[in-house]
Amino acid sequence: MKPVVPVLTALALVGAFVAAVHAQTPDRQIKYRQSVMAAQGYHFYGILGGMAKGTRPYDRDAATRSARYVDALIEMPWDGFAPGSETGGNTKAKPEIWKDRATFDKLGRDAKVETAKLVAAAGVDLPTLRAQVQATGTACKNCHDKFQAE
Amino acid sequence: MKPVVPVLTALALVGAFVAAVHAQTPDRQIKYRQSVMAAQGYHFYGILGGMAKGTRPYDRDAATRSARYVDALIEMPWDGFAPGSETGGNTKAKPEIWKDRATFDKLGRDAKVETAKLVAAAGVDLPTLRAQVQATGTACKNCHDKFQAE
Repeated sequence: MKPVVPVLTALALVGAFVAAVHAQTPDRQIKYRQSVMAAQGYHFYGILGGMAKGTRPYDRDAATRSARYVDALIEMPWDGFAPGSETGGNTKAKPEIWKDRATFDKLGRDAKVETAKLVAAAGVDLPTLRAQVQATGTACKNCHDKFQAE
Repeated sequence: MKPVVPVLTALALVGAFVAAVHAQTPDRQIKYRQSVMAAQGYHFYGILGGMAKGTRPYDRDAATRSARYVDALIEMPWDGFAPGSETGGNTKAKPEIWKDRATFDKLGRDAKVETAKLVAAAGVDLPTLRAQVQATGTACKNCHDKFQAE
């Protein structure tokens, strides 16, 4: 075990910073899942939605990049819906998530299918992007309608 | 232009949801970059840091997954540091970011080098993970020390 000690000491020196090591409390899980969703919203509604609606100029590279980020982010929030995190903070998650996890998980997978298509569509042209923003938005909405309080 | 109208109408029907389409105001950029950092912290300090410190059992697959998420997320926050978002919300970003962008960007790239190594290290064994958590934490700290207010 000896070599472990200097490493842990060094870790401790990384200091106040690594003091952020913490248990994943319900509040932390809620903050986590909301953070992932917020980051996703920035790229999906802000960048890609803006291009789809014409309030932001279409840019092939920027669209593809945002679509890749959305496609990476869509895999992440689910960890934050662990049992025990049904209530807390300002969560809008409905209790149905934990009662019908199979449906919740399926809608998550459905959304991932659409975000993967979004990556392919984003760089083609604006009408192709727009159609896939719509399809992806519908997949998001299908889950939010069922599992997110107003 | 005709075909655009039904698509936009359909988009409008996606409703209150796509009403979230918005400009990327400074406050929104601040919220975005903080959201990405928070999501990253969950996996890096929470999951991987917990394993490194021994407060969470080492799990090869969980470690690799969190490392992949951290490596994906590290590319994302920089968009949120656009000119004009120097102040607002509860940002701790120092004005130096916008005065010495080259250094800021370089430290971001340095961190990406470490998170890529983290993906490779995470599934090897606990000591390997621990060493690379430390190296990655140092890369994060190098940037925070210089560019983030206490």
